[in-house]
Amino acid sequence: MSIISLLTDFSLKDNFVGVMKGVILKINPEAKIVDICHQVKPQGLLEAALLLKSSFRYFPSGTAHLVVVDPQVGSKRKKILVKTKNYFFIAPDNGVLSPALKEEPAIEIIEITNEKYFLKPLSNTFHGRDIFAPVAAHVSKGEHVEEFGRRIESFQVLELPKVKITSQSLVGEVIYIDHFGNLVSNIDAKTFKNFTKNKIFKVFIKDKIINHLSHSYAEGLTSKPLALIDSFNYLEIALRDGSVSDYLAVDKGEKVVINRI
Amino acid sequence: MSIISLLTDFSLKDNFVGVMKGVILKINPEAKIVDICHQVKPQGLLEAALLLKSSFRYFPSGTAHLVVVDPQVGSKRKKILVKTKNYFFIAPDNGVLSPALKEEPAIEIIEITNEKYFLKPLSNTFHGRDIFAPVAAHVSKGEHVEEFGRRIESFQVLELPKVKITSQSLVGEVIYIDHFGNLVSNIDAKTFKNFTKNKIFKVFIKDKIINHLSHSYAEGLTSKPLALIDSFNYLEIALRDGSVSDYLAVDKGEKVVINRI
Amino acid sequence: MSIISLLTDFSLKDNFVGVMKGVILKINPEAKIVDICHQVKPQGLLEAALLLKSSFRYFPSGTAHLVVVDPQVGSKRKKILVKTKNYFFIAPDNGVLSPALKEEPAIEIIEITNEKYFLKPLSNTFHGRDIFAPVAAHVSKGEHVEEFGRRIESFQVLELPKVKITSQSLVGEVIYIDHFGNLVSNIDAKTFKNFTKNKIFKVFIKDKIINHLSHSYAEGLTSKPLALIDSFNYLEIALRDGSVSDYLAVDKGEKVVINRI
Repeated sequence: MSIISLLTDFSLKDNFVGVMKGVILKINPEAKIVDICHQVKPQGLLEAALLLKSSFRYFPSGTAHLVVVDPQVGSKRKKILVKTKNYFFIAPDNGVLSPALKEEPAIEIIEITNEKYFLKPLSNTFHGRDIFAPVAAHVSKGEHVEEFGRRIESFQVLELPKVKITSQSLVGEVIYIDHFGNLVSNIDAKTFKNFTKNKIFKVFIKDKIINHLSHSYAEGLTSKPLALIDSFNYLEIALRDGSVSDYLAVDKGEKVVINRI
Repeated sequence: MSIISLLTDFSLKDNFVGVMKGVILKINPEAKIVDICHQVKPQGLLEAALLLKSSFRYFPSGTAHLVVVDPQVGSKRKKILVKTKNYFFIAPDNGVLSPALKEEPAIEIIEITNEKYFLKPLSNTFHGRDIFAPVAAHVSKGEHVEEFGRRIESFQVLELPKVKITSQSLVGEVIYIDHFGNLVSNIDAKTFKNFTKNKIFKVFIKDKIINHLSHSYAEGLTSKPLALIDSFNYLEIALRDGSVSDYLAVDKGEKVVINRI
Repeated sequence: MSIISLLTDFSLKDNFVGVMKGVILKINPEAKIVDICHQVKPQGLLEAALLLKSSFRYFPSGTAHLVVVDPQVGSKRKKILVKTKNYFFIAPDNGVLSPALKEEPAIEIIEITNEKYFLKPLSNTFHGRDIFAPVAAHVSKGEHVEEFGRRIESFQVLELPKVKITSQSLVGEVIYIDHFGNLVSNIDAKTFKNFTKNKIFKVFIKDKIINHLSHSYAEGLTSKPLALIDSFNYLEIALRDGSVSDYLAVDKGEKVVINRI
């Protein structure tokens, strides 16, 4: 079994994703290709980084995770292949891998330079097809990572928005809005619980106050936002059977404040 | 061969579907996963039920059909696994399976309770990932259905809008609008033919009258709605090379009336 | 290995694509199905033809490319199966294959007529499910092309918009706009280079003038359109980190003019 996951900002409007799959299967007909997501906003590095971080561990050991969100394609930005205990990661070196690699540390980082593995002629605008897809295909066939280029010591790091903690409050923000309109904050379950310590608290978002955690969407009302720890372990603001993002007219970046009482 | 079909309201915007596929492949690397549809409107039980009903029989015998449209996730709603002559169905017990099971009767209904098959930690908001995907994966590996929980006798039933039949008229409604803007009614071919008996009839929709059945879209005009029996055997109103839904400004629920003359 | 690629205007809103995949796997459980694109505009023959032409060669030898953009479904238009040196192509005979077959010549053209391979009952509105998918599945299993019908000598041809060349100028047009808003012209790299011969030139689009070729998107400015030869070897107008289609308010058909100086 050789699984390759794909995460891009290509959308499914064009043939970009399909062509990458053709390229992979030409090299490794046994590859199983799984789409994580292709609807990342164009050049949305932070969004792609979050999606990768919350997805990679659900895949079988040995999976090659291929991420192509690449605003600098064709420039001098590096292309990297990272080996971890359980996975391979392949991406432009623009920080998109860093939140995932914080949880699954890099064992070996390779700058991809060996043109033997590139498609010819090599374009300057579609390295997903000409470099990343063929490299992922060869990795999935068992090619040793050091064949693809030289070892390097570090990769670019993308900082996620940080939570501010004071004695009285926790100040986070909405970093992701899902298809249902749920607002995912950057406050993880551990930070939240360390701060509230099972005592009374209030969650403030826009002009709304929520004073307890729900366990499920169905517990809430259709006209009153609720808060819960979501399936990826972050504090989330939601609305039963509706989009809280629409209901509150809230976008990414909106402050989420927790006060102890 | 072990095929798993997926039908959800998750859309492809997030990583939900991709993560479910990762979970499945971790358990059964041989699974072939086929997307039926992920664009069901959020909490769109009726839409999902119709799509399942018109899809399941086209899949190979032994396919596990996994449906996750689950507004009650995390509440006390049951989770069920149904064995029929040819298929397995896995879904929350909210009626979404019932139109399909009317055509392909249940042989065994299991309430899924065996936590051995669940992902840990178990979330309250993403049973698609933590319960339904792993159960489908184990089913596709040949695990006996009784391993997943206890037999129960019934499941929730979702009633589709009924056609009203009088001596002079058949009153149905638009229950689905496809990507091309075709209006699918709840009047099936048999009901239609029994009523019209090859005699003269008129189809009324909004302020339009159609007085015969076409055999294909191409037979029509680009400025005159036509009626035909569609590929899923329902009476459909359409427009050659265009969207009749836009043309007539018609939405789901619009009446479709057949009169005998 | 038996790969089938799919290219349709069905979108992913309905169950059409999923049902076709079920049909294929029922006939050939070993088939690997790859989506090239399903977001072709309804009845968008030219768009589908361009996507196929720029995709097919990236797939493994032996791939069956299945194209269903079929405004004439159910009418007397032919259904064809074409064998080339490396691939099979299956589509309605409406010209959608012709730009690809200009690059990969037909060796054998079969009019698909053998009902043995069709689903029964045969609908008049969904030949993708009832004819094209089963034929592709049987082709992918190695069935000889002459089993599907009789040899014919020609297929419909779809003319792509032509570039006008005078002594002083090259007049092309925008024929495709991708997800990023990049404007793909019908001026291919060879035509462009033969005309400019490394001399000074100007590219005119709407009220903008571009006077050199960039090598990558990242070379440009976020407020100044750039021109480059894209990954499919066509002259493309783009904007760094943005949509030049939105920026210039340009749609398909917009003139792209190159002047020599």
